[in-house]
Amino acid sequence: MRPRLALVPGEPGGIGPELCVRLAHRPGAADLIAYADPDTLRQAAAAIGLPLRLRDPGQAAGPGELALHPVPQAQPVRFGHADPANAPAVIAALETAGAACLAGELQGMVTGPVHKASINDGGIAYSGTTELLARQAGAEVVMMLANPTLRVALATTHLPLRAVADAITGEGLSRTLRVIDAALRRDFGLARPCIAVLGLNPHAGEDGHLGREELDVIIPALDALRAQGLDLAGPLPADTAFLPRKLAGFDAVLAMYHDQGLPVLKHSGFEQAVNITLGLPYPRVAVDHGTALELAGRGSADPSSLFAAADLCARLAARRMPA
Amino acid sequence: MRPRLALVPGEPGGIGPELCVRLAHRPGAADLIAYADPDTLRQAAAAIGLPLRLRDPGQAAGPGELALHPVPQAQPVRFGHADPANAPAVIAALETAGAACLAGELQGMVTGPVHKASINDGGIAYSGTTELLARQAGAEVVMMLANPTLRVALATTHLPLRAVADAITGEGLSRTLRVIDAALRRDFGLARPCIAVLGLNPHAGEDGHLGREELDVIIPALDALRAQGLDLAGPLPADTAFLPRKLAGFDAVLAMYHDQGLPVLKHSGFEQAVNITLGLPYPRVAVDHGTALELAGRGSADPSSLFAAADLCARLAARRMPA
Repeated sequence: MRPRLALVPGEPGGIGPELCVRLAHRPGAADLIAYADPDTLRQAAAAIGLPLRLRDPGQAAGPGELALHPVPQAQPVRFGHADPANAPAVIAALETAGAACLAGELQGMVTGPVHKASINDGGIAYSGTTELLARQAGAEVVMMLANPTLRVALATTHLPLRAVADAITGEGLSRTLRVIDAALRRDFGLARPCIAVLGLNPHAGEDGHLGREELDVIIPALDALRAQGLDLAGPLPADTAFLPRKLAGFDAVLAMYHDQGLPVLKHSGFEQAVNITLGLPYPRVAVDHGTALELAGRGSADPSSLFAAADLCARLAARRMPA
Repeated sequence: MRPRLALVPGEPGGIGPELCVRLAHRPGAADLIAYADPDTLRQAAAAIGLPLRLRDPGQAAGPGELALHPVPQAQPVRFGHADPANAPAVIAALETAGAACLAGELQGMVTGPVHKASINDGGIAYSGTTELLARQAGAEVVMMLANPTLRVALATTHLPLRAVADAITGEGLSRTLRVIDAALRRDFGLARPCIAVLGLNPHAGEDGHLGREELDVIIPALDALRAQGLDLAGPLPADTAFLPRKLAGFDAVLAMYHDQGLPVLKHSGFEQAVNITLGLPYPRVAVDHGTALELAGRGSADPSSLFAAADLCARLAARRMPA
């Protein structure tokens, strides 16, 4: 049986809807059910000159067709503009799709880019889709970015840099590493994943000369997890851990913070990079780019990341389904 | 006239001496004068099976020969071991070579890797060769790493992560950017260099949602420098600034801290990466790797970074010499 995946375009005024239209024209290994406003999808298709037929969620959808669970917007879309009046519909689409995944009606979720400022301007406190889905599921999650050659998970995500050091705790690292280890085994089929853990400080603290968090927090946490069977390397200096010959020995890298891990990942393969939420009861894979309002409705936006997200989500979902 | 460059091997027990022997066998665009212990160089040559003849500093040195300004060590070298008793000789070699450069007897300096802990264990307070040479010269300097496709300068260098945010000041950024701009013009021959400046926080602070340093410190500093004619982009989000298509528009990237800028640089071309000190009265280029004690004396250490450092230093020195 093919997995059934929710497809949530994200910000209506951005490139998400047109990327979903392109995805509907591409054969894939899953059945997609869009959670979106029907008019927005139709207008996106018209804007980029592709046909689109919307179907009921129960119907099979062929090439150029998309099964739809309608989530009406308050205002018509204007490509290139993120209208805060439509923020409730963006959030409702994510929450409705999440509920369907939690209920087992769908086997995973693929999401496009959301416009954070517009949601907040719309009066909804929102720090990110990862956080929203984690709260809905009551799950501890980890954000992991991946391209075809590299997986980078984050111990902290969207924090001011000055708040990072205090946010790294032994308990938090243990939780994070358990989630990563379990996901690499279950979802990625690795029998004994090896995770490289970066230090917090330059040169991983250089034996305490450049900061003590490695000695006081990170090393004890890693040692305790190793005693429980996790295969962990580190804490490693971030500048040399990403040398290609070193990366070859690791299944994933855990960076302590956003700008320690993501520049290399995006430099080395942005177009096909995706954002995976580990630890949810279902697989969720997102694009690794923003709403690109300036490109919306022109047909020039690159769909590679959404295609890669849909492909990966289908593989992860199929792996969890009964044979 | 060919430039005359000081060649300082760094830690005697590491791979520095044997890399210098290899360099002596390679034709280059500069005359090299080694500042080192003669026995250490001879032993390094013997260990890797290459001939070496040492000459007086005034003599021309052909292939397999090296002009030497002797700096005797307290203890004989043992490859693979960093002996703190030899720390004074390591420092003396750097200081003597630096003095010769400042006096105009030499036109630049090429340095191998130093073992920071061994120097400090030897009772000498030492935070890095860059800092030592800056103090000796009374100069404001900036560390810039470069490989054949990318230049990354650092606003802060070897600081614990939790100290970074407070170390970023408008005055410091202005000083740093002026040094970079002047060096790119004078030493790299760029008529109007464009420098990409990264934000301190993830997403460059996202309009204050993820930290205020961009709004309060970085943007005002950049605006003031732009009014004085500097061509600056940013503050840019670090994760997307390194996308290859974006890098194409920049002559250098200024990262706010060590692990924000160096992982990409090393990932994308470690072997040929070098460390350039901008702002000294003479060009100084160092290898971008450590002492690799575990490889010393075996002949397997890769000399690419030292070769690249010598080549670049020769070019920078020649550009400063009268025609």
